[in-house]
Amino acid sequence: MLSKNQIKLIKSLGQKKYRQQLNLFTVEGVKGINEFLNSDYELETLYTTELVFEASNNQIQEISEFDLKRITSLKNPNTALALFKIPQNRQPLEYGLKIALDAIRDPGNLGTIIRLCDWYGVQDLICNTNTVDCYNSKVVQATMGSLTRVNVTYLNLETYLTTNEASVFGTFMTGENVYTSDLPKEGVIVLGNEGNGISQVIETKINRKLTIPQFGNLEATESLNVANATAIILSEFRRRSIEM
Amino acid sequence: MLSKNQIKLIKSLGQKKYRQQLNLFTVEGVKGINEFLNSDYELETLYTTELVFEASNNQIQEISEFDLKRITSLKNPNTALALFKIPQNRQPLEYGLKIALDAIRDPGNLGTIIRLCDWYGVQDLICNTNTVDCYNSKVVQATMGSLTRVNVTYLNLETYLTTNEASVFGTFMTGENVYTSDLPKEGVIVLGNEGNGISQVIETKINRKLTIPQFGNLEATESLNVANATAIILSEFRRRSIEM
Repeated sequence: MLSKNQIKLIKSLGQKKYRQQLNLFTVEGVKGINEFLNSDYELETLYTTELVFEASNNQIQEISEFDLKRITSLKNPNTALALFKIPQNRQPLEYGLKIALDAIRDPGNLGTIIRLCDWYGVQDLICNTNTVDCYNSKVVQATMGSLTRVNVTYLNLETYLTTNEASVFGTFMTGENVYTSDLPKEGVIVLGNEGNGISQVIETKINRKLTIPQFGNLEATESLNVANATAIILSEFRRRSIEM
Repeated sequence: MLSKNQIKLIKSLGQKKYRQQLNLFTVEGVKGINEFLNSDYELETLYTTELVFEASNNQIQEISEFDLKRITSLKNPNTALALFKIPQNRQPLEYGLKIALDAIRDPGNLGTIIRLCDWYGVQDLICNTNTVDCYNSKVVQATMGSLTRVNVTYLNLETYLTTNEASVFGTFMTGENVYTSDLPKEGVIVLGNEGNGISQVIETKINRKLTIPQFGNLEATESLNVANATAIILSEFRRRSIEM
């Protein structure tokens, strides 16, 4: 049986403020929790209705279905909810292809971008501090375990791009055609906010503006969804490394 | 002032059953409504708190903010809600590149796939009847007006693929590498359900299995989100048509 204080603590992790104070976040469901258990993430406590996990006993607490319903953020909770520690002092690697996000607000978009980084072997996802928190439970769910394999760091993107020596790419409505541009194996690719794109201050740090050409009705079509734009750009960077 | 019956009718359009009975669907917000007004879609009634639209007077009803809040499906409704007629007897064109969806369930995924079709000049989106309804208000919102420019048809996909002579492509975890395959300008590209992929009965109709190669941790990574897979595949089909 869960105490009132336990329930209060777990529910408080729905807010970024408390996740940061407590350095904890929640993962739900057997499959997702197993991915985190098999990663570098450190378990704090695992609440489960069935003892189907390999974790040390003093970290597992068996709870009722009723209690699980009191702590879940899902409509249909699945067996377990775990608290993991938020890793501290993460830094981007010094090499490799990186994605950087400027003010992405939608948890689903961030989640699928993390999956894309995982798919395309991008180890570093750099988020400007105005980007939605990757330990938001909707993001964690949407990553389908990919969050355990991508190094997500939050930092001042303007400072990072100023001090970094890598080429900085950005996606815009006009720029070099991504299909016909020469693209290197390393660099930072910046993607901007869902509504407003890349902010002016970040735009000044970009060396090469890329565009995904449009094949439809040129006047009417809105821009692409940012996760889809990320998919297409990453696809282009990576396919160049395949011998044709 | 809206009558109880009007409110009941509008709210009922949240359900597919009533949309189909009444052949009506809702569009919200000034920008979205203007896109539909400037398209082939036929307006039934426009409810608005401000008279900022170009439509005939007998189709416009001025309402209060209070009434708008009673009929909206949004947290923050924007000025207007319109009822448009669902087009009848649509058929796919006989030529061109087409996307076909087998049991896509998430409205956001369908919405962004419609945007992708619009971006890449794919006129026909064919949905197996087990796919989420494109007149669902979440889909309409997510398409950002693209729904007015893509011909979405619901039909028995198995029958369609059996009687159609075009090449049929499908995305799978194993298959021809999409980056190095020879891809034609026409054909049907099938994408499958978020959890289960393409169903067995549809798989038998596929001539060429394509795969998006993975560059990350080959054992662990889940499949890509279906909208992102669509983005990458469409990008590959279309870029081949650019002179390099």
